[in-house]
Amino acid sequence: MCSPMKHPIFHGRPLDLKHGRIDLTHGAGGRASAQLVNDVFAPAFDNAWLAQGNDQAIMPPVAGRLAMSTDCHVVAPLFFPGGDIGVLAVNGTVNDLAVGGAQPRYLSAGFILEEGLPLDDLVRIVQSMARAARDAGVQIVTGDTKVVERGKADGLFITTAGVGVVPQGVELDGGNARPGDAILLSGHLAEHGLAVLSQRENIGFDSSIVSDCAALNGLTEQLLETCPSLRLMRDPTRGGLGNALNEICQQSGFSMRIWEEALPIRTTVRAACEFFGLDPLYIANEGKLIAVCARQDAPALVDAMRAHPLGQDAALIGEVTDDARGLVRMQTSFGGERLVDWLNGEVLPRIC
Amino acid sequence: MCSPMKHPIFHGRPLDLKHGRIDLTHGAGGRASAQLVNDVFAPAFDNAWLAQGNDQAIMPPVAGRLAMSTDCHVVAPLFFPGGDIGVLAVNGTVNDLAVGGAQPRYLSAGFILEEGLPLDDLVRIVQSMARAARDAGVQIVTGDTKVVERGKADGLFITTAGVGVVPQGVELDGGNARPGDAILLSGHLAEHGLAVLSQRENIGFDSSIVSDCAALNGLTEQLLETCPSLRLMRDPTRGGLGNALNEICQQSGFSMRIWEEALPIRTTVRAACEFFGLDPLYIANEGKLIAVCARQDAPALVDAMRAHPLGQDAALIGEVTDDARGLVRMQTSFGGERLVDWLNGEVLPRIC
Repeated sequence: MCSPMKHPIFHGRPLDLKHGRIDLTHGAGGRASAQLVNDVFAPAFDNAWLAQGNDQAIMPPVAGRLAMSTDCHVVAPLFFPGGDIGVLAVNGTVNDLAVGGAQPRYLSAGFILEEGLPLDDLVRIVQSMARAARDAGVQIVTGDTKVVERGKADGLFITTAGVGVVPQGVELDGGNARPGDAILLSGHLAEHGLAVLSQRENIGFDSSIVSDCAALNGLTEQLLETCPSLRLMRDPTRGGLGNALNEICQQSGFSMRIWEEALPIRTTVRAACEFFGLDPLYIANEGKLIAVCARQDAPALVDAMRAHPLGQDAALIGEVTDDARGLVRMQTSFGGERLVDWLNGEVLPRIC
Repeated sequence: MCSPMKHPIFHGRPLDLKHGRIDLTHGAGGRASAQLVNDVFAPAFDNAWLAQGNDQAIMPPVAGRLAMSTDCHVVAPLFFPGGDIGVLAVNGTVNDLAVGGAQPRYLSAGFILEEGLPLDDLVRIVQSMARAARDAGVQIVTGDTKVVERGKADGLFITTAGVGVVPQGVELDGGNARPGDAILLSGHLAEHGLAVLSQRENIGFDSSIVSDCAALNGLTEQLLETCPSLRLMRDPTRGGLGNALNEICQQSGFSMRIWEEALPIRTTVRAACEFFGLDPLYIANEGKLIAVCARQDAPALVDAMRAHPLGQDAALIGEVTDDARGLVRMQTSFGGERLVDWLNGEVLPRIC
């Protein structure tokens, strides 16, 4: 419904991409909508399926189980050090597929635009999405655009959905964790959340912290090759490492112990967290993954992570323990132990 | 990214679904998000893939070409005669797949919620989605929820994406229309748009007009069986019949002639359109389809439509003509002819 991207050819005036703004006609499904697609989306996302110009994209059959995922993106502000809402929208869905062991293939993109949004912002974001999709090896094959009145949305929201293929033999699941398993983390914690926070109008601070936003499918494919007995992977995004580990405990019915000293956290991030009273365990990451594997496979898996550009700072951070209460405990740097609970409340709203 | 629906089991207080409201914690990815999934989404959408509780759903392999589509839904108000944003969100994506000749299978659902949204409204909408999915024979297998601050969205927006399978031999495309082809419409025009309009605060009017919102995949499958040489189908949603016909002309490079007297429009709809100065040709439909077929197949196809509950008022409304300008012309009831141009501007904002 509500016809998506097409390639109509109009001979009218081109859109003023430098100084123009989104108005309600761009979401009406008529001439202005078609022009927006023609001038902004189609040239950036250019591929055979989008060019079909029908209300759906039709791709060749795929061999293997089908993986599907979706993510809504409402990050504020739209641009931040290391990325923007567009990169986030592509990589977020790519990563949700990748950590399930799937090879991401096709993405859909739904845009909800606020009347008055500068076209220049939209173009930058769409070009970021196109670049991110190319880098991740996926195609944005179909889309939709709606416009709401000024004050009824906040700039723009992007919802992507993705489809991927799971190779035979790959059976990752949060429920696979077993007592004695090793817990690995692919790199430094909490960079995305702090990079976005650094740009908030009311609490902006100068820092060198850059979002870690990246597509993880290259890394996940390499890890699956190295360690076919991998139990599961997960990307600790909103809710951070602390919440992701609790999810795995809840799914598997076992507990976990992690070691504070083993957690890779940059000094600048640690300092910023202390300053703002934030716990890096609950801050969002957008280019990191947790992997759980049999203990004997851990050294090879850490090596495989470190051999990849996105896993250079990988570390063994903990183990699964035989305790049916499903609790995450952290051995602190001072030798004590604390409970790492589910995230309660809200740490940083609109972080992704 | 940003963990989607899971099934965590909490022993805390259940959500107050009658009097509670959405707050920012419901979008934070922690305990409150999990509870929302557990108490609202999971019981309604209940299926094996959603119950996996991972960041992606993994389904069995599918045989055939893959179809994919997405739609953002921003309709205002959220509830209207004949449906609500939830039914619309399911049927919209189901129909976009169906008119491409695909059998819709799996849906994703992304919710952007405004802080303060009554939980009671959310529950009603989610239950509508679940019912619509059951009726259409599709499964909602994965989802995401984000919450934005009060005033940064308008109640809620829903973006669905869908995946379907295209049976061998089915090759529908807007570019397939040929001069001499017949143009069929499956029923009465403009009911969805007017039903929503009737509920707008500032222009509300009493009427018996009900949205035609419905899943078309049962009808499309029957039409494909009856007429394997079908050229194309399209659902004339936002932008209405007028815009959809222009899209087909643009894709095929031919023109069209339609007959005003043949257009099925109810008296109440015609009267309301006259009163508000609206042209029913550009008003959204949500349960209708256009079919283009070879002239000799038209009688059988009209019969097949009329034999289906959603096509009882089907009619032959026009023909494709050999004119490379890609224009839609309408022979009026008075014997004249007028151009049916692309929709210019905006007729009814936020209609879907």
